[in-house]
Amino acid sequence: MRNPLLVPDLRELIQDGEVLALREFVSDQHPGKVAELIEDLEDHDGDALFGVLEPRDRAEVLSYLDLDSQNRLVEAMPPQAAAELLRVMSHDERAALVNRLDEDFVDEVLPNLAQAERDDIRRLTSYEPGTAGAVMTTDYVTLPPHITVREALDRLRHEAPDRETIYYTYVVDHTRRLIGFVSLKRLILARRSAVIEEIMQQDVISGRVDEDQEPVARQIEKYDLLALPIVDADDRIVGIVTHDDAMDILRQEQTEDILKFGGVSPDPEADTAPYWQSNVVSVVRRRIKWLMLLFLAENLTTPVVQHFQWTMEDEQVPALFLFMSLLTGTGGNAGSQTVGTVIRGLALGEIKLSHALHVVAREWLTGFCLGLALGTTGFFYIHYWRGQPWGVSGVVGLSLFGVCMWSNVIGSIVPLAASRVGIDPAVVSAPFISTLVDATGMVIYFSIAIMLLGLTR
Amino acid sequence: MRNPLLVPDLRELIQDGEVLALREFVSDQHPGKVAELIEDLEDHDGDALFGVLEPRDRAEVLSYLDLDSQNRLVEAMPPQAAAELLRVMSHDERAALVNRLDEDFVDEVLPNLAQAERDDIRRLTSYEPGTAGAVMTTDYVTLPPHITVREALDRLRHEAPDRETIYYTYVVDHTRRLIGFVSLKRLILARRSAVIEEIMQQDVISGRVDEDQEPVARQIEKYDLLALPIVDADDRIVGIVTHDDAMDILRQEQTEDILKFGGVSPDPEADTAPYWQSNVVSVVRRRIKWLMLLFLAENLTTPVVQHFQWTMEDEQVPALFLFMSLLTGTGGNAGSQTVGTVIRGLALGEIKLSHALHVVAREWLTGFCLGLALGTTGFFYIHYWRGQPWGVSGVVGLSLFGVCMWSNVIGSIVPLAASRVGIDPAVVSAPFISTLVDATGMVIYFSIAIMLLGLTR
Repeated sequence: MRNPLLVPDLRELIQDGEVLALREFVSDQHPGKVAELIEDLEDHDGDALFGVLEPRDRAEVLSYLDLDSQNRLVEAMPPQAAAELLRVMSHDERAALVNRLDEDFVDEVLPNLAQAERDDIRRLTSYEPGTAGAVMTTDYVTLPPHITVREALDRLRHEAPDRETIYYTYVVDHTRRLIGFVSLKRLILARRSAVIEEIMQQDVISGRVDEDQEPVARQIEKYDLLALPIVDADDRIVGIVTHDDAMDILRQEQTEDILKFGGVSPDPEADTAPYWQSNVVSVVRRRIKWLMLLFLAENLTTPVVQHFQWTMEDEQVPALFLFMSLLTGTGGNAGSQTVGTVIRGLALGEIKLSHALHVVAREWLTGFCLGLALGTTGFFYIHYWRGQPWGVSGVVGLSLFGVCMWSNVIGSIVPLAASRVGIDPAVVSAPFISTLVDATGMVIYFSIAIMLLGLTR
Repeated sequence: MRNPLLVPDLRELIQDGEVLALREFVSDQHPGKVAELIEDLEDHDGDALFGVLEPRDRAEVLSYLDLDSQNRLVEAMPPQAAAELLRVMSHDERAALVNRLDEDFVDEVLPNLAQAERDDIRRLTSYEPGTAGAVMTTDYVTLPPHITVREALDRLRHEAPDRETIYYTYVVDHTRRLIGFVSLKRLILARRSAVIEEIMQQDVISGRVDEDQEPVARQIEKYDLLALPIVDADDRIVGIVTHDDAMDILRQEQTEDILKFGGVSPDPEADTAPYWQSNVVSVVRRRIKWLMLLFLAENLTTPVVQHFQWTMEDEQVPALFLFMSLLTGTGGNAGSQTVGTVIRGLALGEIKLSHALHVVAREWLTGFCLGLALGTTGFFYIHYWRGQPWGVSGVVGLSLFGVCMWSNVIGSIVPLAASRVGIDPAVVSAPFISTLVDATGMVIYFSIAIMLLGLTR
């Protein structure tokens, strides 16, 4: 419970049916806090609190509740009341809600809405998930270019209650083509008699309705925008994506990136897949693909060991087997470090493909330094602590040095190459690099052993 | 070059010294776009374009340039002009700039500023990096509770040019204690004669000045805020953190998380360490710590192999060595998948410590399913494809099953335990889990071999 002090008082107000007191309490709170309280109360008290809210408060609180509670609360409402709620909800959220609600219930509710609202819902629910169209909202303000600032402010005041944001307004011509942009700050600072056309910013940063949601969110992040207008192929404005949606999109993309890096395929069904909302079957499905692929790749180690098995006849070699995991493990770790760094640099646009050679050289140099440190440590450690002869410790030390350089090079080349051929570099996971390094690291190890110890068949 | 069409025209305007045309061009563009153009032009043309801007445009454009260019451009200005620039910059950005500029230069510039501005810079530069204080800005609007909406709007209009945002205003009493919050939308919708106290929202979500920046940014994300007020120990407002700063903070934290997950310590010096800005020495330092630690942990495999070395005398056992890497590798991969999922769930607050048992059970079940699939595959693969006797393929298949379950359990318990004892679970990297699973996986493998093949000393 996040608000232990408030909950008992609230419970009393609810049980005494103090509707006015409850409404006043709610109006002093952020809707997100009210949503938390509803979740903290017992189900019937929470439902009762939600029940006394006025439609507009209800719409705001609803958007902060978890998806299951949203569905439950709305489906418990009479169709008339649900329609009234949909009418005042922000347009992107009501489209998402309609997508999740029971179809029969939706069929009962929609006829209670005006034609325009039904069309809006139909349009927004029809966009491909993951595109700008599927996350944008249609409750923004547009202005014609020829009206005055005074007229614009009157219009804003009139439209504000039904709009997600009034802080950015978009100027459109008679075909709804986006020709400019004015912030409320600029409106407030301008002369009341100035014409919108004169004060608007003409070069508007915008996104395309069929574009992927991530670049749209990155634009909002890069230019510190409150909202980004979304246009169709003819440059007509069809919606806006707001800064809070951009944050959600980026969080979701980062979740996908860290899961991919750990070797888990992203959930193709759900837009977001919070931990508890994906069942074990879908989790297994998302992991087995990679695990099986890596298993097959890991099998490359078998012929490598087999190829060098003849060396086992030499009396020094069983000792070498003791350190095989140490070696492949260290290579995998160094490779993971590199691939993590490079993937992130690519995702943030800090690393461009034109830098590829520079990046690989840099990572090789890093691997050289790391290898020098670990190789030297390993060399002395294995002789003095593990009591192995100098020959064996020399093989391990030199191999550690070689494997560190090698895995840093692999860890930078592979994501760069993936990016070059158009594969999302984030799918190059830490396990993938470790697996690659396992087999190749052994080749390095045995080859050095053969040379240094002068083994012959 | 990101704007190949504009750059040649611009270059011409600059070389012809068309100051007015350049200023008009700039006023139609987002400052972030102007910054890109300056970076795309040759240095002297870029400097010239920056030079013709008016101070306010200059301040906005500056904040979108990379840090090195910012320092270079400002340090090339006469102290008087630099002071004028600082005067109109947003307060958080000028504090960050002053922190980076050459000290002697700062000593020349500051005397040109009013006492109040100097005090503001001194205060903002004094906060501990990484706290809310170090990222907040002080150019926000406050209102007293007793004035009318009309008076408030006049005040906003008057103060707007110098404020980072006017869309949120904070209501304070005579001691600057934060007592309420009003959005510009609410102000615009209210009766002009209403008193602020009546229309303000009383329960304000706020952060503490000495708090870590991440929870502050998470509040902004969670409640979809444009800005979060920051208060001192006596509840007096001392600054605000804006939504665009919150996005930057979260991006930075996510970068740290993915690097930690790959086994790289975050840069203790830099707030953000873009790929090209950290030199190889600091990169090596940040990676060697973990690599060395993992190297030592990886050494646990050596005594394990040594302990079971006696089994080598059995004729079936050399065959078992062929599949050792396959086994530890698969365990490491399954463990990475789990730890990535659990760390992300913890970071987003989807997994709470009170769910720990449930999480481990769930991951165990996932491991059971994955192990069943891989174990069965391995069993038949090793007999039919690798031509090993049923005994050996039985050992490998059963071990794969055991290792998958085991590494899923380890991959969930370790980050949960870290979180329980107050260690950031994000430091539990994929390499860390792989290393743990390497040594323990071998114990499982050899133990199953001894039992199944009936090996005796």
